[in-house]
Amino acid sequence: MVQLTLIQIDNYGPWTVDPKPRPETDIQSLQASLYADLCGLFGGHLSLLFYSRFDNMLAVTNGMTESDHSLIQESISNRYPVTVSMGIGSSDKPSTAVQKATNALHSAGSAQDSTRKEELVINNLESNSEIQVAHFDANDATNLFTDELDAFEAMIRIESAYYELMQYLWTQHDSLSFFVGGDNIISVTPGLDMGVYSQVVEHILNEVGVELKVGVGSSQIPRDAGVRAKLGLERCRETGDTVVNYD
Amino acid sequence: MVQLTLIQIDNYGPWTVDPKPRPETDIQSLQASLYADLCGLFGGHLSLLFYSRFDNMLAVTNGMTESDHSLIQESISNRYPVTVSMGIGSSDKPSTAVQKATNALHSAGSAQDSTRKEELVINNLESNSEIQVAHFDANDATNLFTDELDAFEAMIRIESAYYELMQYLWTQHDSLSFFVGGDNIISVTPGLDMGVYSQVVEHILNEVGVELKVGVGSSQIPRDAGVRAKLGLERCRETGDTVVNYD
Amino acid sequence: MVQLTLIQIDNYGPWTVDPKPRPETDIQSLQASLYADLCGLFGGHLSLLFYSRFDNMLAVTNGMTESDHSLIQESISNRYPVTVSMGIGSSDKPSTAVQKATNALHSAGSAQDSTRKEELVINNLESNSEIQVAHFDANDATNLFTDELDAFEAMIRIESAYYELMQYLWTQHDSLSFFVGGDNIISVTPGLDMGVYSQVVEHILNEVGVELKVGVGSSQIPRDAGVRAKLGLERCRETGDTVVNYD
Amino acid sequence: MVQLTLIQIDNYGPWTVDPKPRPETDIQSLQASLYADLCGLFGGHLSLLFYSRFDNMLAVTNGMTESDHSLIQESISNRYPVTVSMGIGSSDKPSTAVQKATNALHSAGSAQDSTRKEELVINNLESNSEIQVAHFDANDATNLFTDELDAFEAMIRIESAYYELMQYLWTQHDSLSFFVGGDNIISVTPGLDMGVYSQVVEHILNEVGVELKVGVGSSQIPRDAGVRAKLGLERCRETGDTVVNYD
Repeated sequence: MVQLTLIQIDNYGPWTVDPKPRPETDIQSLQASLYADLCGLFGGHLSLLFYSRFDNMLAVTNGMTESDHSLIQESISNRYPVTVSMGIGSSDKPSTAVQKATNALHSAGSAQDSTRKEELVINNLESNSEIQVAHFDANDATNLFTDELDAFEAMIRIESAYYELMQYLWTQHDSLSFFVGGDNIISVTPGLDMGVYSQVVEHILNEVGVELKVGVGSSQIPRDAGVRAKLGLERCRETGDTVVNYD
Repeated sequence: MVQLTLIQIDNYGPWTVDPKPRPETDIQSLQASLYADLCGLFGGHLSLLFYSRFDNMLAVTNGMTESDHSLIQESISNRYPVTVSMGIGSSDKPSTAVQKATNALHSAGSAQDSTRKEELVINNLESNSEIQVAHFDANDATNLFTDELDAFEAMIRIESAYYELMQYLWTQHDSLSFFVGGDNIISVTPGLDMGVYSQVVEHILNEVGVELKVGVGSSQIPRDAGVRAKLGLERCRETGDTVVNYD
Repeated sequence: MVQLTLIQIDNYGPWTVDPKPRPETDIQSLQASLYADLCGLFGGHLSLLFYSRFDNMLAVTNGMTESDHSLIQESISNRYPVTVSMGIGSSDKPSTAVQKATNALHSAGSAQDSTRKEELVINNLESNSEIQVAHFDANDATNLFTDELDAFEAMIRIESAYYELMQYLWTQHDSLSFFVGGDNIISVTPGLDMGVYSQVVEHILNEVGVELKVGVGSSQIPRDAGVRAKLGLERCRETGDTVVNYD
Repeated sequence: MVQLTLIQIDNYGPWTVDPKPRPETDIQSLQASLYADLCGLFGGHLSLLFYSRFDNMLAVTNGMTESDHSLIQESISNRYPVTVSMGIGSSDKPSTAVQKATNALHSAGSAQDSTRKEELVINNLESNSEIQVAHFDANDATNLFTDELDAFEAMIRIESAYYELMQYLWTQHDSLSFFVGGDNIISVTPGLDMGVYSQVVEHILNEVGVELKVGVGSSQIPRDAGVRAKLGLERCRETGDTVVNYD
């Protein structure tokens, strides 16, 4: 079972234009600071966090308690001009966990409900299950994209691989995929076989022409699953394999 | 003419796995801090900055000089474990400006060249031209997506609109589009007519079923063009118009 | 027993002038970011942290384990151009705990030893003891200082109270005192009687003419001891008392 | 003439206890982030900034305009839960400049006036005068203090030198001195002779037994004056001189 936390900025849309539209650069800086801080705070509890849409972030938080979450909420509200509400859900399938987390949060009110503030709603918690994380990157991305194409074309190529992978893993394998910078994509998966990963990599190559490789890691601790996935990816680099399950 | 700056972390790929793979959460936090800081530093010069792929960022920097850029490079190198190189180019078409900026940077070496460090290569600068910025968002996104779908589905819907818009404006109108959080996309355009925007919005609706609206702003100062675009979007909200050119 | 952690930037002096003196504003920004981040990371474990000399910080860390500390070290080294070493010591007297923590760190080498890097040396840990924290501020500081004197004179007045208090509590009561901004000073004490605090406040008034008040809080959790001390200070404000032990 | 800007958090005292006392670690983190950010933002305009009391900061801002300041205010208000007001004054004597800046700010209301918000009051601006900056540090501080004493004693020794220096330069030479971390103190001075610095260093040695050395730099650009002072200090290190005027 994977435990997912949905973090949502309270009443954020209205805030960004109150009393008048705030310059986008300031808003981006605020969002990025919040994301950086939450990476640190959730990371301090060995969790993984993804920026998703920035005003809605998703974290893999197996082992984190209610009070761990509420302490983070309090810290944010003391240091930022906005507050965050959170919903938590757990399931064998990441896609179901995110539904449960979302439903929990929805039960506390709308994202633009001016009275909803710092809510923390828990559907169910999970702490002793193995989680599987897959870390993808594009083969030879520096040579093929960064050093070869202009910066926007390179971004489009990576984005196309991300977009296809995200949809495919979601619809076919109940997995959540997140772009994490460069040519890196991390997926939270329900324990897929290595054969599935081979087939996924082939699918992306056929659809958008980008060759991926992937390291897979498992652990009861989200951070460790992520680190093992990266070690798997390193092994791909050394051996030339497309898929490595790091045991 | 729009002046674009490409900011690239030097030799970043190797750094992230040296001496061993660094935990992703730390890397994300580093990237987000750098992005937040650069928003502040470029914003202090009335520029706009977009995270692009995080290790490659793009900024609209009309009016910023060589020394403005090198001061930012120095500040980053004094506070971060990484350095950044930059290329600058200007053109009537944003797509050409990014090519020039990329070529400038490429002339200083590969992104994974261990000897390339804090290079600043200028193709050409521009300071007295009007820039056009368009700010898109999704109609009724909170009701239709955030409060209705689960958090990952909502992200996919917004991502699909972004992906389609980014490609379409790039291939058809030489424009650069960037997701900036929530349901917001900002495009740097070569001065398009309002009719074009109407047609773009219709295209996105037909292709992916997401209804966008857009505010358009122009100024010689990037920040002001962005603020005017947001004011245009506010006017859309008030009037129900799909496209507003804020004059 | 109070558990104290000494956090020291490795080989920092040489770094600040290598290859040439780095602008002070960048160094201050680096130090302040590190301090802000460490507040967040230690705060996430319910600890208190003080900037001390910025390149040497002190934290009250009862209940934090070795791995809690090493995770923070790793995170810092992945996001900053510097690394930190730490020493940990515990004792009934804060002054003895800081000696033990310092000795532990000294055993790993000099602050300017270029080979000492990310050391973590533990003398002894402590988790189940009550800690006492005292939170002082100056009576009516806004009226008497901030709104009345010029900004530098006001700073000197607060500084004089801090300097006297810090020395007095150190030499007479084995306590560690830290300026935390505004007119606030926090002391980590070995469980002093309220009569002692009354006498301390009187001493400061006689010596430097600044009237302090103080809230005192105790808990096995550093954060809670600090919050209780602040609640004590609030009660002083309401009742006009000079010393309040918040039970 | 030196131009000084006083930056004051609006209505900060009440905010820190509203609706209940906020944990000190969060407040410290907020203050440190604000300080780090302002270092970056003022530093981007080649100014120097000092944390002073954190809720009141002082900056040397020769050459910065009204709009440079108001842009920073706007950025802070968009990213922090607090706003800042500013007063600006210029004079040949730093001590007079800080008075003028303070008076300007006082004219807009009290620090705890709940209606005062984001005020910017200018007494007078200055852009083409040479400023003198002195950078002091303690001789052999790592050996004598950091590696020899415990961390708190070392802090007290440095603090005693700072306290004496700050008072002496203020009362005798109209100068403003600020601790900037480690064993470093920066003074903004009205163009003192090198003989005066020799005498100041001797005074500190006699009074508190700490041997200082000092580099002195001048420029019309605050940042450059600061860098030159540091280069002077480096030269002290090489030559063994106590005072070096870096020309």
